[in-house]
Amino acid sequence: MSFNRKHLLDLESFSKEEIIYVLDTADSFKEVLSRPIPKVPTLRGRTVLNLFFESSTRTRISFELAERRMSADVVNFSTSGSSVSKGETLKDTARNIEAMKIEIVVIRHAAAGAPLYLTQCVDAAVINAGDGQHEHPTQGLLDLMTLREKFGRLDGLKVVIVGDIAHSRVARSNIYGLKAMGAEVGLCGPSTLLPYEAEQWDVEIFHRLDEAMQWADVLNVLRIQLERQQKGLFSTIREYRKLYGVTRARLEQSGKDITILHPGPINRGVEIESELADSEYSLILDQVTNGVAVRMAALYLVDGGSSDK
Amino acid sequence: MSFNRKHLLDLESFSKEEIIYVLDTADSFKEVLSRPIPKVPTLRGRTVLNLFFESSTRTRISFELAERRMSADVVNFSTSGSSVSKGETLKDTARNIEAMKIEIVVIRHAAAGAPLYLTQCVDAAVINAGDGQHEHPTQGLLDLMTLREKFGRLDGLKVVIVGDIAHSRVARSNIYGLKAMGAEVGLCGPSTLLPYEAEQWDVEIFHRLDEAMQWADVLNVLRIQLERQQKGLFSTIREYRKLYGVTRARLEQSGKDITILHPGPINRGVEIESELADSEYSLILDQVTNGVAVRMAALYLVDGGSSDK
Amino acid sequence: MSFNRKHLLDLESFSKEEIIYVLDTADSFKEVLSRPIPKVPTLRGRTVLNLFFESSTRTRISFELAERRMSADVVNFSTSGSSVSKGETLKDTARNIEAMKIEIVVIRHAAAGAPLYLTQCVDAAVINAGDGQHEHPTQGLLDLMTLREKFGRLDGLKVVIVGDIAHSRVARSNIYGLKAMGAEVGLCGPSTLLPYEAEQWDVEIFHRLDEAMQWADVLNVLRIQLERQQKGLFSTIREYRKLYGVTRARLEQSGKDITILHPGPINRGVEIESELADSEYSLILDQVTNGVAVRMAALYLVDGGSSDK
Repeated sequence: MSFNRKHLLDLESFSKEEIIYVLDTADSFKEVLSRPIPKVPTLRGRTVLNLFFESSTRTRISFELAERRMSADVVNFSTSGSSVSKGETLKDTARNIEAMKIEIVVIRHAAAGAPLYLTQCVDAAVINAGDGQHEHPTQGLLDLMTLREKFGRLDGLKVVIVGDIAHSRVARSNIYGLKAMGAEVGLCGPSTLLPYEAEQWDVEIFHRLDEAMQWADVLNVLRIQLERQQKGLFSTIREYRKLYGVTRARLEQSGKDITILHPGPINRGVEIESELADSEYSLILDQVTNGVAVRMAALYLVDGGSSDK
Repeated sequence: MSFNRKHLLDLESFSKEEIIYVLDTADSFKEVLSRPIPKVPTLRGRTVLNLFFESSTRTRISFELAERRMSADVVNFSTSGSSVSKGETLKDTARNIEAMKIEIVVIRHAAAGAPLYLTQCVDAAVINAGDGQHEHPTQGLLDLMTLREKFGRLDGLKVVIVGDIAHSRVARSNIYGLKAMGAEVGLCGPSTLLPYEAEQWDVEIFHRLDEAMQWADVLNVLRIQLERQQKGLFSTIREYRKLYGVTRARLEQSGKDITILHPGPINRGVEIESELADSEYSLILDQVTNGVAVRMAALYLVDGGSSDK
Repeated sequence: MSFNRKHLLDLESFSKEEIIYVLDTADSFKEVLSRPIPKVPTLRGRTVLNLFFESSTRTRISFELAERRMSADVVNFSTSGSSVSKGETLKDTARNIEAMKIEIVVIRHAAAGAPLYLTQCVDAAVINAGDGQHEHPTQGLLDLMTLREKFGRLDGLKVVIVGDIAHSRVARSNIYGLKAMGAEVGLCGPSTLLPYEAEQWDVEIFHRLDEAMQWADVLNVLRIQLERQQKGLFSTIREYRKLYGVTRARLEQSGKDITILHPGPINRGVEIESELADSEYSLILDQVTNGVAVRMAALYLVDGGSSDK
């Protein structure tokens, strides 16, 4: 088995074997990160462009750390979408990239499909760091890696994604990845925040958090975007918290040992109780650590995976 | 022949021999860029400060790539001019640079003459990455390199610069460089966008694009700044496009094989037809590729040009 | 004697022996900076995060140069405080840093105590690059280094800090550092800009600049923040300049050879006469040069100080 993709655009198209291959590669890079000098020459002489059309802190820093620890040359380009007339610019930006002979592009963009479009314009390898409400595949992979580490398996694991599924690329990448790996997936949130297509996804739908917790081994709690409230998709933060906020009291009331994930950044005290986020139930910091390892694996694999690790 | 300048501030003062020396050096760096690991140790241990007082994407990335591929340490400083009281700050910034022992400064500034002023304050080598409406010498050099590559010569070549000549530093650097190399230069645009001094430059003036095309081997099409319209320098975008927009139909109507340059970023469908920009007539992407090579040459030469390439 | 601190948070807690140890280390790094290739492998494979919650140019560039000259991997994160809900974010940012295994964090923050708080959340070594109105210890150290270089000693030296002492972290770090080294400290400024606690500091208080100059060997002139005027803390810039502006005429009138420091950036013609800032009295550029050496020493020492220089 080897990795025959030039790009990492989504998890929807990934087979179980491919995901296992990426996760195994990420495990070996995690070992690199535990060394006194956590650095390998794998991408020496390669240039990686971080092309962020949406502001981001942690994803950008996580990719940049992965790149530097693989000895790549890093060029950052960040812009808020507002100043860019997007379609044209993305095409011309892409053609410029090609002409400057940049080998790998990590792109975050507010438009679903922008990374795919980029692959049609350039020879560079492309990694999707989040595209609109479509996918965020390295987030999905780091969630899988974290759960596999904890449970030793993904097959048969019951994972409920809680919150605003409709607008979440993290949710989509999780659903595709988890199902490919044989996990069972549930969704829990107000019906205004569940997507139309949910019924076709072969997932469990829960409208009450307590029911979801009775079913779940894992809750993957999404950040609630407070601007959704202004659009009338939920009534008040207080009510959202009351209905869907994950708390230690609720966890203990369920009588179950449920593992908590959250992609960050956390709205402490809204979708998750602050103390619970830092508790023994939470794998949130393992997710961050594993994010760097997964991104090293992604960079390694789209680059051809042939150099020494 | 060797290169005896410590700075690269303009092309106006360059002799033909000096330009040939820079272009030959750039050719050898272009060969470096085609290697599997496009990196040389030429500037290892040298620090380059990219001091951008005007926002820029492609010029900044092009310089930064050139610097990293020569193994320089890179420090970026970008600011929009608005927050800076310029005169004072430039002087103190310069003196700070000197005190921090930075070897090379790449400066872009809205004020013509800022790079020259910088050379009077510091020991560092200074490269002008665009100063007001004065010059953009690395852009001029990459245009020359691209045309020499295509035609094998510059002497006798007829190049028409189309658009807003009056406000364009790209135009000035092109005019000086082309004339030094023995090319013939024409200018074409509305009279409101031609500079007062044009008549002293020994150039052809065309007010009609069709006449310019009958004369030209090359059109170097400038980006039209849409804010010029608000100042009454042309009437509407539609009219500008009708009179000066370069299209495939017009090219084919001319009956001539005309080469197209554009310094980017392109206003597709305004000064140049989108399809034409991507066509076999266009050398726009060669310009981008050559830009990195020219900037490597500029960094190498102002640094003394003594290390191994 | 060795350096047993994992963090550099303040100078208040430093003994004379510790300060001497840091200054001696900085002297040896200053020698590195004078080499043709001013670079050492001391921090190779270490990642330094520059976490700047307040905008800064010179301090950020000075740290970044120090980091690159020690071969560290550098990740920059800058944000204006306004977009961040600070308490929460700093905690979560800190926990993310820890999870990403970053070894050293350089933090500037508008809140006094933020660097200390960070040390309570993470394993990384923390260097305070300025926290609110508390301390700016590397600035204090570079001032000490510059004066020790000039006078060969600090013991018994009389240093007057001129200007807005109350709001100045530079003043606090200077006072603690100078007094630990046996220097005598004076403060001079309008009483609205002197802190309540000044009387407990065992310092001389001067309300008139001429008196201060009769006493002083050195004036450390602080930048006057023009926004203090709007808060009624001084009447007009003209009056401030008349009372506290340091000029060559005043210096010569004092009949003494007084050395001038200023932490920058300078308001030329306000707190200091422009010509005087560039004169033989001024050590302002030595401060900038020494700033890089002091920051290299700080990075070296918090990292354990065990690698070869």
